[in-house]
Amino acid sequence: MPVMNGAVLYGPYDVRIAEREVPGIIEPTDAVIRTSATCVCGSDLWPYRGVDPVTRPTPMGHEYCGIVEEVGSAVRNVRPGQFVVGSFFASDNTCAICRAGYQSRCVRAQPIGAEGAQAPLVRIPLADGTLVATPDIPPDDLIPSLLAASDVLGTGWFAADAAAAGPGKTVVVVGDGAVGLLAVLAAKQMGADRIIAMSRHQARQELAREFGATDIVTERGDEGVARIKALTDGLGAHSVIEGVGTQESMMQAIRSTRPGGYVGFVGVTHGVALPGLELFFAEVHLHGGPAPVRRYLPELIDLIWNRKINPGKVFDLTLPLDQVAEGYRAMDQRRAIKTLLRP
Amino acid sequence: MPVMNGAVLYGPYDVRIAEREVPGIIEPTDAVIRTSATCVCGSDLWPYRGVDPVTRPTPMGHEYCGIVEEVGSAVRNVRPGQFVVGSFFASDNTCAICRAGYQSRCVRAQPIGAEGAQAPLVRIPLADGTLVATPDIPPDDLIPSLLAASDVLGTGWFAADAAAAGPGKTVVVVGDGAVGLLAVLAAKQMGADRIIAMSRHQARQELAREFGATDIVTERGDEGVARIKALTDGLGAHSVIEGVGTQESMMQAIRSTRPGGYVGFVGVTHGVALPGLELFFAEVHLHGGPAPVRRYLPELIDLIWNRKINPGKVFDLTLPLDQVAEGYRAMDQRRAIKTLLRP
Repeated sequence: MPVMNGAVLYGPYDVRIAEREVPGIIEPTDAVIRTSATCVCGSDLWPYRGVDPVTRPTPMGHEYCGIVEEVGSAVRNVRPGQFVVGSFFASDNTCAICRAGYQSRCVRAQPIGAEGAQAPLVRIPLADGTLVATPDIPPDDLIPSLLAASDVLGTGWFAADAAAAGPGKTVVVVGDGAVGLLAVLAAKQMGADRIIAMSRHQARQELAREFGATDIVTERGDEGVARIKALTDGLGAHSVIEGVGTQESMMQAIRSTRPGGYVGFVGVTHGVALPGLELFFAEVHLHGGPAPVRRYLPELIDLIWNRKINPGKVFDLTLPLDQVAEGYRAMDQRRAIKTLLRP
Repeated sequence: MPVMNGAVLYGPYDVRIAEREVPGIIEPTDAVIRTSATCVCGSDLWPYRGVDPVTRPTPMGHEYCGIVEEVGSAVRNVRPGQFVVGSFFASDNTCAICRAGYQSRCVRAQPIGAEGAQAPLVRIPLADGTLVATPDIPPDDLIPSLLAASDVLGTGWFAADAAAAGPGKTVVVVGDGAVGLLAVLAAKQMGADRIIAMSRHQARQELAREFGATDIVTERGDEGVARIKALTDGLGAHSVIEGVGTQESMMQAIRSTRPGGYVGFVGVTHGVALPGLELFFAEVHLHGGPAPVRRYLPELIDLIWNRKINPGKVFDLTLPLDQVAEGYRAMDQRRAIKTLLRP
């Protein structure tokens, strides 16, 4: 059995490189990708911290870009040697749900995470519907941004879209992780007038400003909501993006939104219960979930390829894959915004 | 002190006619309306049944239409002698929230219910922003429909709008009360392809069909969801309208909606807590609350005036105001869909 080194989570705070079977084509619609880069997701921290229980050794990672190594016999849209980016959910991109733009909920959706993308090779199911090739092999300096498109940029973009960010709008971003920061970038690209980033962390505030934030609010919870109201004529923001997933952050987002406004939530919710009557009288639009990154990939790749955006800046720590444990630790301790791993 | 007879709720199941002070102009922006008709709302049943506590004798009713009796010195848009319809929330119709179409959450919003519209006269605050005059004094047979526009039609209309009902869409309506039935009518007017009414009550099923329902589903809860899935290629509906407000009905609505679909909820929520993780992976659009009826009033009045729609059919019981107790009883016992009261 050919083996490779990949990241495996054994229990809380115990992620290590372990020998894993080299993935191959299983279904004729599969492709195998040699990853140029992979990374650690904020959502990987939930099992890492033991919030999501880890019952058996679990291969980690669901973000990837790289060179197609091999394709199954039914694959038509990509071929070996191409550089590709794909979403963290495989999708056929042809079913009614995909055609409506919700590829993350494709009727045949499969999470990439099952076999772990924090590895030198990863099997991608439904390759034709999942992968998007770049115009050529990218220069090395574009790789972090193309990797970001695989999840964190696409997720921030979906959040800004769900929150109806656009011209004339005041947008609030709750959460200063990589998703929140890239939601700032997305809102800026969508033409928002004013972008308020909620952050109390200096390096993240600076990156938020670089991505387009016009205001920084350091208060949280009720005080944060009061500050947003004070900045918006007492009304609340038109568009609020939630990129954390806790009860506090969800309520902060909903309460920061004006009646008739939009909340886009993409933080994987943990222990959240939304009070019905408050939601009723808040009269906001609420939309979120796992981002249908595939919907946005062609546009995002185009913006990156033409150097209109530089989302790769969220990677403030780059490590070789075999130092994955430090990559998780740095994110857990908020020493790093996001860790890029080089296989 | 001049007095009149109006409906007052004294405690659970105890609504009676009592002498109340005749309303007059208090603010220069007020009008006083002589009600041609008023009615009992599904939401009136929450305090009637003791679910919402009644701590003191409470004047009832918030739906009305009738002739302007008197206006304050600042009122410009309506004048004595005109026939008017207004929403159950007074609104200035000029603030940023109103201009965005959310008059029920106007920065100066006042509920009409405070003084009770189940009476021959009712004071309407912010008359210029709240009331819409009909082209002329209506013939008597149009009055039930014009009264319906004051709340129950406008609420069903908002629900169908929030659920993005329209051409090519399959719409599900959870709740066969007057709001649910008029949401069927609204979805039909908006051009929905298929309208599935969830009802196990024969008279309501018949009215749903008359209003445009193409299918009736009698199952509820998980069985109801399974039936909707079976009718929609396993995907769920594009648009689901919730007009009840319980945990069961809200979850039935969310689970009946396909990923990327829309839930419009207008049943006043009671004891509802939405589980965050299920909402995250449901990936639906969720929007609802007190309907901004004022947004739709000109269009609704026009449709009624030109006899394009006949929403007044939801009133299957008409009583003189002094029989208000029987009006509530009949609705509580589901003998009547909705009771019209003639002052």
